[in-house]
Amino acid sequence: MTSAHPSSPSPGHGSYPERVRIVEVGPRDGLQNEALPVPTETKVAYVDALSAAGFGEIEVTSFVHPKLVPQLADASAVLAGIERRPGVVYSALVPNPKGLERAVEAGVDRIAVFTAASETFNQKNINATIAESIDRFRPVMDGARAAGIPVRGYVSTAFVCPFEGEIPVGKAVDVIEQLLDLGVDEISIGDTIGAAVPLQVHRLLEALGPILPLPQTTMHFHDTRGTGLANVLASLEHGVAAFDAASGGLGGCPFAPGASGNLATEDLVYLLHGLGIQTGLDPAALRKASDVIELALGWRLPSRVRRAGPASVSWDERTEQP
Amino acid sequence: MTSAHPSSPSPGHGSYPERVRIVEVGPRDGLQNEALPVPTETKVAYVDALSAAGFGEIEVTSFVHPKLVPQLADASAVLAGIERRPGVVYSALVPNPKGLERAVEAGVDRIAVFTAASETFNQKNINATIAESIDRFRPVMDGARAAGIPVRGYVSTAFVCPFEGEIPVGKAVDVIEQLLDLGVDEISIGDTIGAAVPLQVHRLLEALGPILPLPQTTMHFHDTRGTGLANVLASLEHGVAAFDAASGGLGGCPFAPGASGNLATEDLVYLLHGLGIQTGLDPAALRKASDVIELALGWRLPSRVRRAGPASVSWDERTEQP
Repeated sequence: MTSAHPSSPSPGHGSYPERVRIVEVGPRDGLQNEALPVPTETKVAYVDALSAAGFGEIEVTSFVHPKLVPQLADASAVLAGIERRPGVVYSALVPNPKGLERAVEAGVDRIAVFTAASETFNQKNINATIAESIDRFRPVMDGARAAGIPVRGYVSTAFVCPFEGEIPVGKAVDVIEQLLDLGVDEISIGDTIGAAVPLQVHRLLEALGPILPLPQTTMHFHDTRGTGLANVLASLEHGVAAFDAASGGLGGCPFAPGASGNLATEDLVYLLHGLGIQTGLDPAALRKASDVIELALGWRLPSRVRRAGPASVSWDERTEQP
Repeated sequence: MTSAHPSSPSPGHGSYPERVRIVEVGPRDGLQNEALPVPTETKVAYVDALSAAGFGEIEVTSFVHPKLVPQLADASAVLAGIERRPGVVYSALVPNPKGLERAVEAGVDRIAVFTAASETFNQKNINATIAESIDRFRPVMDGARAAGIPVRGYVSTAFVCPFEGEIPVGKAVDVIEQLLDLGVDEISIGDTIGAAVPLQVHRLLEALGPILPLPQTTMHFHDTRGTGLANVLASLEHGVAAFDAASGGLGGCPFAPGASGNLATEDLVYLLHGLGIQTGLDPAALRKASDVIELALGWRLPSRVRRAGPASVSWDERTEQP
């Protein structure tokens, strides 16, 4: 079988990276879908609590037009309010030159531009074809380069589109190549609606092998259908050593059953630490950060590990069970 | 790396089995933890709805002493009430000769005996050492053989024990060997509290390679910490082609936050079908079966796929999001 998968390492501990970098996206990808606005001071407290958990990078907010995402209209205020912890990269989403201007004023360390592998999704998401969105990035890239700010490129619906269904591998590869040509220093490959399965992850990563170096590869999974950690495992087997996640699985809006929660950072950390992979994160501090935002939202965050607690149960909780 | 894992196939579609057998354990493993009793007629309707979904085997109930598991005290009535669909194996848990007697009277097609890889868990679970439990099985095995009924052997807490923590691979292998010597025709290896990670799955399956044939291997995962499907993926990479699951993720009692839900059959089927693996199950009929029991329980079953619905979302449900 191995011959059929030349680029597939064997499963098991031997093939996993020693250390994985987790980019915490809860404050941005998690909160942008919240029905109720979260007070700026709560966002500040949440980001500061995340910094204390040991993240190397936190995506704090988004500089898209406030009318489009009112939940993050206070982007500048949040960045002004947080306590900058040395060594932590505080990043933000930037859609255009105006957004870049605001982001630079706010002193972000890194920005992210975003497009999709699905034309329909991109059209509905940012009202532009993929080609148009790439063109819009050029002035942003130039401005970021001038300001000495590194740029991440997001590719949404890289596996499945809610409108087009499964996305051909070639389509995702093409978009990623265009972003690399544009000069982004990292690609975040997103399973935006949490519908991908490991087979798709294997196929895309195999196709990307020749053009996208592993150090520039980040996987961004949602856990809508329970496949999040299975997709992480498939990615690890290919040597991927960077993942996006949201503390508590933030993003699973209780008012939108079909909407998908980000892969929970707690669940990802549980898996990685269990595999003997270092993350530099402190699970207890991470739980405290999720407490901050869960209290403010008033609904239970979906993270399985958060709900289950430590790997032990009191006997009263169960009857006889194989 | 491959050399470090001689028995580990490469990941990816090429190494997965073509077809997987799913044993539905919801009526037994799911309902035995319910705080409120479920009416017999509801259980009957649930099992019949499961039969209609295409399962080859359904674990209907348990013949443990009614005092120990009052939720399943109506075992005989349920088996008497269901409509036997040709080709479907209706099985039940049996702890002792008395239980076997009742099971045979009720006309079960297959029985299951159960022990654990953790002495502490087994002691608290069935008030016996592992050795004592194995001894108790001998008369049950003899009776089953005389009645011409095949026997499955469950090994609970094969990876992690809520009291002892991680279980040494050798301990699980030893218990499984004893069950095989006893003459069980299949082993169901259980991550009873849903705390295992793929590394443990790889290590145990590699150790079992020489003594446990794949056709006799079934994995029984719980999804308490979100690692259920990742553990399934690791098992598939070893060639395992049989899994236990409970429709809807039944077993996650809302009154016991630490208690663990079974891996949801819907989520398992979503993963397997997505990998191009046949299960013989009809997702729509499976959903209807879960509807029957969810309505009776009055709380939302945890299956991610059940909650997310089909792999598409209405645009209103989300704002801009990579």
